[in-house]
Amino acid sequence: MIFFPDSEKIKDIINRGEVLEADYLDTVQDILNDVKLNGDKALIKYTSQFDKYNLEEKFYFDREELKVFFDEIPEDLKTAFVNAKGNIELFHSNQKEKTFLVESKGAILGQKVTPIDSVSVYVPGGKASYPSTVLMNVIPAKVAGVNRVVMTTPASNGEINRLVLGVAYLAGVDRVYLIGGAQAIAAVAFGTESVEKVDKIVGPGNIYVALAKKLVFGLVDIDMIAGPSEILIIADESANPKYVAADMLSQAEHDELASAITITWDKELAIEIEKELDFQLKKLNRADIARKSLDKFGGILLVDNLDEAIEFANSIAPEHLELAVKNPFELLYKIKHAGAIFMGHFTPEAIGDYFAGPNHTLPTGGTARFYSPLGVYDFVKKSSIINCSKEYLDKYGKLIVKMAESEGLEAHANSIKVRLEGRDGF
Amino acid sequence: MIFFPDSEKIKDIINRGEVLEADYLDTVQDILNDVKLNGDKALIKYTSQFDKYNLEEKFYFDREELKVFFDEIPEDLKTAFVNAKGNIELFHSNQKEKTFLVESKGAILGQKVTPIDSVSVYVPGGKASYPSTVLMNVIPAKVAGVNRVVMTTPASNGEINRLVLGVAYLAGVDRVYLIGGAQAIAAVAFGTESVEKVDKIVGPGNIYVALAKKLVFGLVDIDMIAGPSEILIIADESANPKYVAADMLSQAEHDELASAITITWDKELAIEIEKELDFQLKKLNRADIARKSLDKFGGILLVDNLDEAIEFANSIAPEHLELAVKNPFELLYKIKHAGAIFMGHFTPEAIGDYFAGPNHTLPTGGTARFYSPLGVYDFVKKSSIINCSKEYLDKYGKLIVKMAESEGLEAHANSIKVRLEGRDGF
Repeated sequence: MIFFPDSEKIKDIINRGEVLEADYLDTVQDILNDVKLNGDKALIKYTSQFDKYNLEEKFYFDREELKVFFDEIPEDLKTAFVNAKGNIELFHSNQKEKTFLVESKGAILGQKVTPIDSVSVYVPGGKASYPSTVLMNVIPAKVAGVNRVVMTTPASNGEINRLVLGVAYLAGVDRVYLIGGAQAIAAVAFGTESVEKVDKIVGPGNIYVALAKKLVFGLVDIDMIAGPSEILIIADESANPKYVAADMLSQAEHDELASAITITWDKELAIEIEKELDFQLKKLNRADIARKSLDKFGGILLVDNLDEAIEFANSIAPEHLELAVKNPFELLYKIKHAGAIFMGHFTPEAIGDYFAGPNHTLPTGGTARFYSPLGVYDFVKKSSIINCSKEYLDKYGKLIVKMAESEGLEAHANSIKVRLEGRDGF
Repeated sequence: MIFFPDSEKIKDIINRGEVLEADYLDTVQDILNDVKLNGDKALIKYTSQFDKYNLEEKFYFDREELKVFFDEIPEDLKTAFVNAKGNIELFHSNQKEKTFLVESKGAILGQKVTPIDSVSVYVPGGKASYPSTVLMNVIPAKVAGVNRVVMTTPASNGEINRLVLGVAYLAGVDRVYLIGGAQAIAAVAFGTESVEKVDKIVGPGNIYVALAKKLVFGLVDIDMIAGPSEILIIADESANPKYVAADMLSQAEHDELASAITITWDKELAIEIEKELDFQLKKLNRADIARKSLDKFGGILLVDNLDEAIEFANSIAPEHLELAVKNPFELLYKIKHAGAIFMGHFTPEAIGDYFAGPNHTLPTGGTARFYSPLGVYDFVKKSSIINCSKEYLDKYGKLIVKMAESEGLEAHANSIKVRLEGRDGF
């Protein structure tokens, strides 16, 4: 499982998320058009076809109807979710931005921050239906001050996930629609008889959901498109191979496309980690998935030194980066691209996935080069503020006229001139 | 030109940007695939076909080659652009975000801010080729600290816009590629023999450019998709009809799809503005365009009172909102959705288009409901930071294990357990 920087494996890892979108484009476009045209009727048809669920029985749960699902969560698990919610709220409150005004050469300039009015969170059904997804997507919207937060989640094979609905109540969701796939995205993007149109759609989903989000992008806003998950661990001689192996497996168990890599320059450590992986794998329920993920897209990368490890990490721009080293804070500023950085030996990824507070919705597949974790900033928007005086115009008006004229936009120039010289100016 | 809140015109205004994207999807997808597969060869072919320009003669200008275009700008116009650049830099420096660390229940949490590595700015060719576009798109990227900023702009009908190239030098662009359309987007998204792949693409463009950006979204990041431009002016009895008319025309001259609306509850003012529009229109070069825009998508909306005016403005979520009222700051917090807000009688939109400092790349067509002006925040990304101690795990580890188990993710739970109890824990 040990490999080297010149390995062919690295190319496989980088390209593992590539999907031939073109193959799905027509199908998704058809579903979007159908929902846009036929509304609820189309939703009922697709939900029966794909989820084996009859929407006409129960289309959605309103806030007060969700409480029963929250109440039935076992006490210790409820405590965990309530604690996690508090931590997530607390961390995200640090991301709140304020309206500002500044004076600039006699003009008053500024930026007003306003929450988005309404948001829909997509939560997958079936095996990938996770309550932590609900907390991580809903809470930043609530902290931002979004007025209406709804959720769409399919009753896959006719079954609802009661824990997901309970946590939706805890998180403050206003309504949960039992729809999924591209049709759910279409419903909240266009609106139907029963579904109110929203301003932004967030949350993970399969290729149909992702492509539908891309196609409605512009009509509504969307978050980033999530690909398969990954962890990269930089381990020095201080690392505990048992911990490193456990953290790799926590990523590898997700799905066969997940990638779990440890980079080290300590050959002995590499061998120890390999042994631990074998040992711990045997005990896992999801051993088959984890083993396939490790064989194809994971392993222990042996490099020459720390600098090479960091260079490789930046080139991969991993979703999760673990610095299993003695002095992680000293490395922080060498890390250019990573979704979240887990520092030191007592910060396994799972702490961030569930509990500590920062968001677990992170840029995957190298997109940490340009995307950020989901945050409060994704649920507000800004308006520029400009206030000028007659004196400002007197001083700078002629320069602005010059610029407008250089672009051939006469009426732009006139709007300045009329204030300087009246209509005699033009 | 006066109309009322129940007018059919309002629906036309809202829907005026709607384009049947599906009609263009195959063409754009074909161009993208062709450039991905055939690189420069495809770029040369499309550029010859669409722009009547031979890329093999001159493919791009490097920074030092651009200086000649800057040097030839007339002195007074140069002064204007240099001043504008200073103002834009100054305003955008207020948007810079800082890395932070906070302590939370014994864990250290934080958020690291890092500039995006490389950005490409699209600047249209032909009639919509504006030097101000260059400043407004390039400067926030430079302020953010982006390492490499390139530009793509077509030599439409074989002709380059020398002023645009000169201002590209002033703004700090590293290289200008003489390519346009969907093929330019493909080139910087995928990379070719001559074009280096970038991490983010910004800038306005026609339907082909917009759709290409949408389709490469995810592989690279993009800015918002721009539609036709609009201004909404709320005018009270203190407004000067000459100024209001001039500002409406500065929007209406852009193109026939532009929308310029004044809302007022003062009937006399409405009549005065109407007269002024007629008078000022006659003098304009672009009178035909402006008149068509006003007839179809503009005019003076007569409402009952200020509250109704603000409600209407929020429902339109205009790109540009002008508060031509006596006390504009008192209205600021009633405005929920607007790209930029121009306050008072001496702040025509043109000041913001060119000079004051805030960005002129603004959300159009109602998308101010969820988009912000282009800003420094568009050219950085964040990484979460999490650092926990053994004590933190001892205290909260069991709750995290509960949550992982509730999702059936055994290895996630193990990664906590191994640190609490060693491998005996699982």
